[in-house]
Amino acid sequence: MLEQILKQVADGTLSPDQAQKELETFENLGFAKVDHHRKKRQGFPEVIFGEGKDPTQIINISRAMINKQENVLVTRIEQTKAETVMKSLPDFQYDVASRTLFMKNNDENVQTSGYIAIVCAGTSDLPVAEEAAKTAEAFGVEVRRFYDVGVAGIHRLFAHIEEIQNATVSVVIAGMEGALPSVVGGLVSHPVISVPTSVGYGANFQGLSALLTMLNSCASGISVVNIDNGFGGAYNAVMIQRIANTH
Amino acid sequence: MLEQILKQVADGTLSPDQAQKELETFENLGFAKVDHHRKKRQGFPEVIFGEGKDPTQIINISRAMINKQENVLVTRIEQTKAETVMKSLPDFQYDVASRTLFMKNNDENVQTSGYIAIVCAGTSDLPVAEEAAKTAEAFGVEVRRFYDVGVAGIHRLFAHIEEIQNATVSVVIAGMEGALPSVVGGLVSHPVISVPTSVGYGANFQGLSALLTMLNSCASGISVVNIDNGFGGAYNAVMIQRIANTH
Amino acid sequence: MLEQILKQVADGTLSPDQAQKELETFENLGFAKVDHHRKKRQGFPEVIFGEGKDPTQIINISRAMINKQENVLVTRIEQTKAETVMKSLPDFQYDVASRTLFMKNNDENVQTSGYIAIVCAGTSDLPVAEEAAKTAEAFGVEVRRFYDVGVAGIHRLFAHIEEIQNATVSVVIAGMEGALPSVVGGLVSHPVISVPTSVGYGANFQGLSALLTMLNSCASGISVVNIDNGFGGAYNAVMIQRIANTH
Amino acid sequence: MLEQILKQVADGTLSPDQAQKELETFENLGFAKVDHHRKKRQGFPEVIFGEGKDPTQIINISRAMINKQENVLVTRIEQTKAETVMKSLPDFQYDVASRTLFMKNNDENVQTSGYIAIVCAGTSDLPVAEEAAKTAEAFGVEVRRFYDVGVAGIHRLFAHIEEIQNATVSVVIAGMEGALPSVVGGLVSHPVISVPTSVGYGANFQGLSALLTMLNSCASGISVVNIDNGFGGAYNAVMIQRIANTH
Amino acid sequence: MLEQILKQVADGTLSPDQAQKELETFENLGFAKVDHHRKKRQGFPEVIFGEGKDPTQIINISRAMINKQENVLVTRIEQTKAETVMKSLPDFQYDVASRTLFMKNNDENVQTSGYIAIVCAGTSDLPVAEEAAKTAEAFGVEVRRFYDVGVAGIHRLFAHIEEIQNATVSVVIAGMEGALPSVVGGLVSHPVISVPTSVGYGANFQGLSALLTMLNSCASGISVVNIDNGFGGAYNAVMIQRIANTH
Amino acid sequence: MLEQILKQVADGTLSPDQAQKELETFENLGFAKVDHHRKKRQGFPEVIFGEGKDPTQIINISRAMINKQENVLVTRIEQTKAETVMKSLPDFQYDVASRTLFMKNNDENVQTSGYIAIVCAGTSDLPVAEEAAKTAEAFGVEVRRFYDVGVAGIHRLFAHIEEIQNATVSVVIAGMEGALPSVVGGLVSHPVISVPTSVGYGANFQGLSALLTMLNSCASGISVVNIDNGFGGAYNAVMIQRIANTH
Amino acid sequence: MLEQILKQVADGTLSPDQAQKELETFENLGFAKVDHHRKKRQGFPEVIFGEGKDPTQIINISRAMINKQENVLVTRIEQTKAETVMKSLPDFQYDVASRTLFMKNNDENVQTSGYIAIVCAGTSDLPVAEEAAKTAEAFGVEVRRFYDVGVAGIHRLFAHIEEIQNATVSVVIAGMEGALPSVVGGLVSHPVISVPTSVGYGANFQGLSALLTMLNSCASGISVVNIDNGFGGAYNAVMIQRIANTH
Amino acid sequence: MLEQILKQVADGTLSPDQAQKELETFENLGFAKVDHHRKKRQGFPEVIFGEGKDPTQIINISRAMINKQENVLVTRIEQTKAETVMKSLPDFQYDVASRTLFMKNNDENVQTSGYIAIVCAGTSDLPVAEEAAKTAEAFGVEVRRFYDVGVAGIHRLFAHIEEIQNATVSVVIAGMEGALPSVVGGLVSHPVISVPTSVGYGANFQGLSALLTMLNSCASGISVVNIDNGFGGAYNAVMIQRIANTH
Repeated sequence: MLEQILKQVADGTLSPDQAQKELETFENLGFAKVDHHRKKRQGFPEVIFGEGKDPTQIINISRAMINKQENVLVTRIEQTKAETVMKSLPDFQYDVASRTLFMKNNDENVQTSGYIAIVCAGTSDLPVAEEAAKTAEAFGVEVRRFYDVGVAGIHRLFAHIEEIQNATVSVVIAGMEGALPSVVGGLVSHPVISVPTSVGYGANFQGLSALLTMLNSCASGISVVNIDNGFGGAYNAVMIQRIANTH
Repeated sequence: MLEQILKQVADGTLSPDQAQKELETFENLGFAKVDHHRKKRQGFPEVIFGEGKDPTQIINISRAMINKQENVLVTRIEQTKAETVMKSLPDFQYDVASRTLFMKNNDENVQTSGYIAIVCAGTSDLPVAEEAAKTAEAFGVEVRRFYDVGVAGIHRLFAHIEEIQNATVSVVIAGMEGALPSVVGGLVSHPVISVPTSVGYGANFQGLSALLTMLNSCASGISVVNIDNGFGGAYNAVMIQRIANTH
Repeated sequence: MLEQILKQVADGTLSPDQAQKELETFENLGFAKVDHHRKKRQGFPEVIFGEGKDPTQIINISRAMINKQENVLVTRIEQTKAETVMKSLPDFQYDVASRTLFMKNNDENVQTSGYIAIVCAGTSDLPVAEEAAKTAEAFGVEVRRFYDVGVAGIHRLFAHIEEIQNATVSVVIAGMEGALPSVVGGLVSHPVISVPTSVGYGANFQGLSALLTMLNSCASGISVVNIDNGFGGAYNAVMIQRIANTH
Repeated sequence: MLEQILKQVADGTLSPDQAQKELETFENLGFAKVDHHRKKRQGFPEVIFGEGKDPTQIINISRAMINKQENVLVTRIEQTKAETVMKSLPDFQYDVASRTLFMKNNDENVQTSGYIAIVCAGTSDLPVAEEAAKTAEAFGVEVRRFYDVGVAGIHRLFAHIEEIQNATVSVVIAGMEGALPSVVGGLVSHPVISVPTSVGYGANFQGLSALLTMLNSCASGISVVNIDNGFGGAYNAVMIQRIANTH
Repeated sequence: MLEQILKQVADGTLSPDQAQKELETFENLGFAKVDHHRKKRQGFPEVIFGEGKDPTQIINISRAMINKQENVLVTRIEQTKAETVMKSLPDFQYDVASRTLFMKNNDENVQTSGYIAIVCAGTSDLPVAEEAAKTAEAFGVEVRRFYDVGVAGIHRLFAHIEEIQNATVSVVIAGMEGALPSVVGGLVSHPVISVPTSVGYGANFQGLSALLTMLNSCASGISVVNIDNGFGGAYNAVMIQRIANTH
Repeated sequence: MLEQILKQVADGTLSPDQAQKELETFENLGFAKVDHHRKKRQGFPEVIFGEGKDPTQIINISRAMINKQENVLVTRIEQTKAETVMKSLPDFQYDVASRTLFMKNNDENVQTSGYIAIVCAGTSDLPVAEEAAKTAEAFGVEVRRFYDVGVAGIHRLFAHIEEIQNATVSVVIAGMEGALPSVVGGLVSHPVISVPTSVGYGANFQGLSALLTMLNSCASGISVVNIDNGFGGAYNAVMIQRIANTH
Repeated sequence: MLEQILKQVADGTLSPDQAQKELETFENLGFAKVDHHRKKRQGFPEVIFGEGKDPTQIINISRAMINKQENVLVTRIEQTKAETVMKSLPDFQYDVASRTLFMKNNDENVQTSGYIAIVCAGTSDLPVAEEAAKTAEAFGVEVRRFYDVGVAGIHRLFAHIEEIQNATVSVVIAGMEGALPSVVGGLVSHPVISVPTSVGYGANFQGLSALLTMLNSCASGISVVNIDNGFGGAYNAVMIQRIANTH
Repeated sequence: MLEQILKQVADGTLSPDQAQKELETFENLGFAKVDHHRKKRQGFPEVIFGEGKDPTQIINISRAMINKQENVLVTRIEQTKAETVMKSLPDFQYDVASRTLFMKNNDENVQTSGYIAIVCAGTSDLPVAEEAAKTAEAFGVEVRRFYDVGVAGIHRLFAHIEEIQNATVSVVIAGMEGALPSVVGGLVSHPVISVPTSVGYGANFQGLSALLTMLNSCASGISVVNIDNGFGGAYNAVMIQRIANTH
């Protein structure tokens, strides 16, 4: 493109002034490349972190996205706040368990085959697990849920192990001692994204215990995201699922 | 006994002076009771924590015990230091893996039936596991070792699960993420004493990760001792094993 | 049992189809063994951790247990929530001090002789001590309470030391500096389960101080459970008490 | 397969005794499935964590693998120890920068197209980066190295950004403040595995600073492994690269 | 006393039965000595830690003390709770700044000469400083207050330095960076009891910063009590003041 | 001056008594010098930390300043409290975003040329950034705001880099992983004051993550103030800006 | 004194020049007062912290003190370094157990009656206890040692309790869980200075456990100095002992 | 410049090919601007962090700088390593106290008037203070040293306060409790860069105590760099000094 502009200047079809304007845009070429790559993310909805934003802010950001016909996902939003948002934007759908709002504005999807396993031990970890599940589904990826399969009752995990093994990638959510990803990681041959939760008390230290457990896992193929970051766990998994579908 | 002394004083068979001497001993009655209870511990060898003691100190303490015909166990003692000790006390036997010295001076034993399961994940945790095993054996308790049965290769644990389940009590040693006690605790119906080890690196923080995991275990019936405290884990288990045999 | 099935197939008394069904059950043999062992726990009520569960969830889980004629214990449940539950299930009894709900549906008991000593320093630690006491009683074990016997007024402890020494096992609860288990551990010859509490302020760091004290105890025979985990302390003690009665 | 065995017993072509032996193997069916899935990992060399193992242990484990014609990778092994091993196993090749030993015994490879970007800021982080690179190469995956592209001289990163963007997955290694993964994560559209290193001093706290930075990254698509765990970072990346090639 | 009893038994003026009763009391001789020493504390009011106690508990404990004509001090009690207590016990006086209740029931005083300097930097530390001051005054010790003399405006400290130097002992209260005790300790030749407060934000970590500063003080003669423990600081100072008066 | 006084005494123009009074003032010479230097700070308004102060306290301190015709800035004051203050002092102006009250009572200004760049990544960090901005403006310094230029969208930073580079000093505010100061520090040649914020969750630990990142920055010329201390960041920057104008 | 100088100038017995010199010294009047108070410390030897200083530095500082006929105490000095110092200054006496050097150059003593109790649990804490004891003795205060009286064998403490109770002040040294000061504090009526030691392992965290225990002690009258700071504990005790003797 | 190139293409004095090459360089315009600004840093020597680099690496980097006639400063380099470097590059001068190597290759200086005050409490902090001093001097800035002026002997600080106040900026170094910057900050009206050191023991936690003290300072105008980062402290100060000279 640079070559082209210069030739046009040389043969007089482009004035130096006009060329200068075009090249000033061109100057940020590095970032243009970035954007080109960002386009590869087509089908990824924009995601709004709802915590600490007031309804008006959420409505304004959402409207800008809706205008561009993007799918919109809001995470970490309490029911009452969500209801205020939905008065202005009634096409949003609220999911209580995951505390998410979602609106579908296009049908671009990340994938057409394969699924993500969302594995989780206890009912207390459910909000984080559902945040992960709803995030992946908002990105158009199939999710299979394996809840209540914790380490202290490990036979329940085995009842489903084959279906978990056949997933492209697992997102394993655990609070308390956070041992589940180590066990799952030893039984599957795909990547395991582990999400520590702040569920627990005392020496749990708001999720620190589960976080350290996962970072120190002796099973290979396990990586970790921040405490309670169900969205982040799912986002990583969706990126990996997309690789499966685009390669 | 108090009643008796007073009657002897009343009937003149004991002078007030002699009675006073006996009663001054008696004064520490509470502690006398303690000692009476301590006698219940018969068969328990005295245990010397070798770390930070020089060979001369260890020899002196050992000799005092040998004179009372007690079994003597020294823990946390490096080979070179042990060899210096053994020059003076050649009846000691040194065990490299557990870094312990032991000398048997009587045949009083804690128990005659039942066994303690020592369960451990990796070869790096072996010194702590063997410290536990040798301690229990020094107390006259049968030990069965289940090594290399970690969480990341959980099927190896299952190959031995029935024998572990039949133990009176388990001592489960684990470093890294420390998840093994949670899994064992979910499979057995006896108490599990868990021992975190300092094996690991980075976010392991010298055993803190394993310690927190065990304290936060969602399996019931698990209690914890200090990091690398193989002796303490075994001591608790021996106390429980003794209950099985004396009740 | 496997041998038997195969012989029946060989002699035609069992069709391959029927045998396959039986063996598919048999496949989970390891877990069957687990369940067999779990049966040994007869008399153990199911326990529901009430924190973070709403009344409807608690009612549903409870009903399932009642149907199986199991005793039901709910821990960590505030009075108002308990009262909501009791409107549907009036046979529950609420205990304010321990914040527990209990319903007796059978008479299976863990033990018939011996008792657990629950030892505790201050009035602030009472909720945790009572959670331990009520848990052990729900499992059918006799409990003797020794409250207000803290380290700073150690003579009160000595007034009761003999009765504590005669217990099968002690559960020692302490907040602030958490020194009580060390003192008790030096005076008794049975296992001591120590429970740190979050009672304190400043450099107590929500129970961390008491937890570290107990993990570092220089008295032998002490193991530790999570901060404020009165239930866990009692559960360990009950398991040990059962050993006394079944061996 | 179960069906088949039973039919053979029924029609007499298999004796109950022989069937029993086969079925006892079969009993661990769940794990058999696991192994089936593990076979999918073909081309993955076995990896020996060299730290804390003596040369004899490493030689013995290596020989067992060589007998099965597996590729063997030893990580975290110092030069002098490696040289001792190589006296017995001269086919090993030692790499100083990554402190790894490698021996190629078969040509099974994980992949044939795509590459992993190993991105790293400073020369001090090189040992961890090279551990990651050599690990990935041992698994047969192409690696492209982008070293010395740290945050404080961010223009060097931009000079290579397009080649990084075209990778299947990035492994980003950083010590000190650990900010590099956030920057890379904002510029690429593939998963970023971040590896904190213990490089730094003072308030770095042996890598804690970099670890927390990465866990808190505001860029999406970033997951984290343990401090200095170059092997773990590469293993995750190889798993993802394999998905690209097998789907 | 033991001698006396035995002689009475010997000469028949005391029956063995009566002697036994007396000696069973005597048995706790060690503790009797303790109580003897405790009597030295005459003039010390009993102190009730009000936090976590309900008004009824406080009223009951107070009444028991009033019956023994002891002075009663209640610390850490909020105004509304105090007012409830005062409805039953109107002789209590509440002090808002220090959150203490006090009732004088006798005139025994710890001292007659000398004073304690209470030194404090900022208005935010005032509640802790006043808890210290009111505690010391309740014990009958003169207190002189030096408030608003912090490190960042150190000339205000110098305006009062001579009067501080003439105190028997100083209690220095400081939040934020907690540097004041180091400065005071370098200027006086008497003991300095330092009290860190939880005043601050961010990297103050609820008083940890001030606590560490005081523990690491390079000035000699400084000791530390728990965060926000104004009572403890004053109690130590009163003990030292009493030494000045009783020796 | 000392010389002068003594000569006046010697020649009888000053009585010893009068000289004594003058010299007693003179005694605090060191502090007099301090005050002389403090006068150099002319134009600096007094600043009241509003947190933990009640409206009456704030009004009283403010009035004392107004009497001296000083500009008054109150930081960390919530809207309702501010409104109470403004009922008594209606000349105050409240700024919601920065939670500051300001009243201009003189026109002395710190500077006449140059500006401070306030750089900030996300909308959640805005309150701290605005506290910094309003503080600097209250001191009469020009501020230019560069918000929403975070590390994960680094091209937005580049769009403004030249204007940031031309500032005298930058105050860079960041929460989450806190990587922004490292990036800015690598691109500018003036001092960077970095302010970590407590924005984040989980392993952010209330701003600890961002704080450690900034302390470990591998870019030179970066210093750090306390978490959320927007005022402190601005105060440092104003001091530097003043150097630019007075030298 | 100021008055005097001025009168001398007025009556011509002192020239303004000479007066100026005297007054320039006088200028630091505040500090003069300090020094006056410092003189009260007569008999206090100067103390050199030996750690991190080389023999030459120690020799030079010592010589300066010897010239002023002060007693000299060097703490934290290893034997080989001490021997090098003693080649130049053979009047020093080295004490192995406490790692101190001492030289007596005058007979001024802090006290003539009363003693300090040094109480300590285990042999591992002996170096810190002896550093405390030798420090107090270097200041001319009588010390009584009560070693090996730890919490786990509390009856040994009771054997000596009366002698401990009769001390003016106790210095209680403890590592591991650090519970001893709480027990002693509950039995005596004088101030207890507690010194945590770094003796322990695992969750001891280099003395943090003992430190927190002591800060959280529920016994009143306990204050704390830094980990392993035997010197600091003794220094505080000597200051208190001096109050007993000078009031 | 862009305009110029395009005009040359338009008038045929530059071929499109040549223009393309020039513009491809030009493409990184943003960074060009950066470099333009970097030129403002003239007189700044390049600085090599010596720790973890071997002599050969240091020699090679140094030679590259010498070729460009830059001044070269190497920090954190031990004497033996320095001597190896000086065999190849004998023009280097080694300074033992600061552990730095310096070679002057040009006379460009940052400044011609004003000075930096380096303030430091104890002899143990000297290596960090001297690293700061030598760094500033290597940048051509005058330094005045104020050592041994710690908080516990604050009158020594006052003896020099005027000279400190007249500095452009202070770098205050302190270990142990780190209180010195707060005191200095309250006495001067220029920016204070504070450097915590790792000098101390026990609850100092390798400099954490001093770091937190400085971050929490209640004096305004104080910012902080990493523990032991004397270089960083000086670098910030030099940047500020340069502002004084260039504005």
